[in-house]
Amino acid sequence: MDRVAIIGASMTQFGQRDAWIRELLAEAGQAALADADVSPDEIEHLYVSNMASGEFEGQTGVPNALAHDLAAMPAYTARIDQTSSSGGAGVYAAWQSVASGASDMTMLVGGEKMTHRSTAEATDVIASLTHPVEYKHGVTLPSFAGLTARLYLDTYDAPRESLGKVAVKNHKNGVDNPHAQFRKEVDLDTVLDSPVVADPLRLYDFCPITDGSAALVFCPESVAREYTDDYAVISGIGGATDTHVVHERADPTTMGGVVNSSDIAYEMADLEPDDVEVAELHDMFTILEFLQSEDLGFFEKGEGWKAVDEGVTDRDGDLPINTSGGLKSKGHPLGASGVAQVYEIYKQLIGDAGERQVDADVGLACNVGGFGNCVTTTIMESR
Amino acid sequence: MDRVAIIGASMTQFGQRDAWIRELLAEAGQAALADADVSPDEIEHLYVSNMASGEFEGQTGVPNALAHDLAAMPAYTARIDQTSSSGGAGVYAAWQSVASGASDMTMLVGGEKMTHRSTAEATDVIASLTHPVEYKHGVTLPSFAGLTARLYLDTYDAPRESLGKVAVKNHKNGVDNPHAQFRKEVDLDTVLDSPVVADPLRLYDFCPITDGSAALVFCPESVAREYTDDYAVISGIGGATDTHVVHERADPTTMGGVVNSSDIAYEMADLEPDDVEVAELHDMFTILEFLQSEDLGFFEKGEGWKAVDEGVTDRDGDLPINTSGGLKSKGHPLGASGVAQVYEIYKQLIGDAGERQVDADVGLACNVGGFGNCVTTTIMESR
Repeated sequence: MDRVAIIGASMTQFGQRDAWIRELLAEAGQAALADADVSPDEIEHLYVSNMASGEFEGQTGVPNALAHDLAAMPAYTARIDQTSSSGGAGVYAAWQSVASGASDMTMLVGGEKMTHRSTAEATDVIASLTHPVEYKHGVTLPSFAGLTARLYLDTYDAPRESLGKVAVKNHKNGVDNPHAQFRKEVDLDTVLDSPVVADPLRLYDFCPITDGSAALVFCPESVAREYTDDYAVISGIGGATDTHVVHERADPTTMGGVVNSSDIAYEMADLEPDDVEVAELHDMFTILEFLQSEDLGFFEKGEGWKAVDEGVTDRDGDLPINTSGGLKSKGHPLGASGVAQVYEIYKQLIGDAGERQVDADVGLACNVGGFGNCVTTTIMESR
Repeated sequence: MDRVAIIGASMTQFGQRDAWIRELLAEAGQAALADADVSPDEIEHLYVSNMASGEFEGQTGVPNALAHDLAAMPAYTARIDQTSSSGGAGVYAAWQSVASGASDMTMLVGGEKMTHRSTAEATDVIASLTHPVEYKHGVTLPSFAGLTARLYLDTYDAPRESLGKVAVKNHKNGVDNPHAQFRKEVDLDTVLDSPVVADPLRLYDFCPITDGSAALVFCPESVAREYTDDYAVISGIGGATDTHVVHERADPTTMGGVVNSSDIAYEMADLEPDDVEVAELHDMFTILEFLQSEDLGFFEKGEGWKAVDEGVTDRDGDLPINTSGGLKSKGHPLGASGVAQVYEIYKQLIGDAGERQVDADVGLACNVGGFGNCVTTTIMESR
């Protein structure tokens, strides 16, 4: 089968933006069209990854608005929402649109506009994805993260400092990402001395609230060759859910959605975890980078913290993780995050990652919705 | 290529329901599993068509909740939103998931819970899909419908009574649909004497605000044969946008999204409009049934009203339209409507439509988002 290729990509400045969701989506969409050297009337399917434009700013129907703003009519459009993994779900939708033969040129634009709402309001919109019983007890995703971090540290005898080192590493990477929300290093003491949010996690263990957008252009590999030599292919992709109620999980330090979605992706790509040379993981909270790096098979269960401790996941380590700066320093505009992960892997694979460039022909992006409630894993290879 | 088949379907009672979106989705999902004789752990992809659970009841993440409620973990899930055509977009997503090879067993559940909000509140949520400039001028979809109806009647010299006859026909059909919100006939005088909503349209020219859900089970035709003799196939499917700003359309009595999406579907199915033997059209307003019946190629432009006038689209006519009762009498729970259209065509094609049964081997469903801003057209055939 003709593989699905990515021939162009863009992301906007992430951070606090003086622009509404429509403007953010159009900005990334126009830039990706230019990057791919594709004109709007070539786009057959146009997907928007977005969780909550209606809740955040009272604007629905954004895919149609984007088709208008990009002059992409009569391209088919739809919005894909899978909460914090809407971006990964959008990548899967775009992949399916091309792999099914429905579209020979698909654009995905993911975005979210959040910073005009208070952190409490934004956190509440996000928490509305939890099980109603959890929600009524006041559970939010940060509180889940605190509980899980405590359990992980206790179970695997990991030092608190190891969590902080995830933040230090990803902030360091973010310095070289011109689109990142935070481009400043933080030292371990700063992380460890920051205000407690959900014990043992502190402010610098959390990603920020962010506005931003990112876009990708997909087509069959046979079509990609007509456009460019600089493309990458999606060789494996899969998605899976875990229990919607977090306390129903036999072991909350294992994310079943990561295990199952990556199993599907590895099998499709005919690759093993050891084959992956660069990865973007969903470090909404520092603890999540440990869990995913283990559940993806990169490290044994309970050993992910050692890899960070020993520098294995540094940019110059054996398996660089979150060269983009991750959600931690790059920012986490919900619908954009999974798209921006694939943007980073794409840039790494075509050798266009600038100061962040590593040597890799196989990359992986893992996008987590809820607290692992739904996960999409995408494996990409250079052509 | 292995065609995509539908092997099971369900819909809940449409109307004012004392149940939240999660309960409505689970009710239809469980019924469709039973109808298809498929167990939850066989489901690989689970899509939810829903426009606004967050806006209507502060609940997001409903696909994950549904995976939980159906015990369908670790099935992959996502929400598909294309405003009023979310159901059709969900059908397209489900079709792509099977046609791409990503899933051999996909369930789609579409639903919306609306009646706990006032008609004004619900209309405002829907109107938030319009262009911001239109929205700020107070434009709602009913007001577009009134303007378009006036233009149609003037342009094609159609009598006001012809619009009313759409309502009369669809209410008559709805009497035999046990799931319909309204199961009562209305006479032409009742329609014509009902309160003005958007001149020349009156109360009975509009579909109601509705709660409800509908579900479908999809798989490759080769798999379908292992489950049942009673399946139907999707032989053509396509989607397209029209201008997001309605006044930018050269001729507002033509819905470009209907023309373009059906062109794609007819070509895929290798069929002509004349081959269609039963159709479900998006009669959110009576005028829309005229426009679609023309833009789908069933009748010449400006002649759709005559077909209704002459009984061509009656249940015993040459081309029965909206045997289900249509949105007009069946109800319009946004995310469910496009799914329920395909439910009706499926039931007709497998000969399980009860009192509504017509003789048909080729059926078509046309689901319209916004005021024709995005449209999905699905063509189905009996096996």
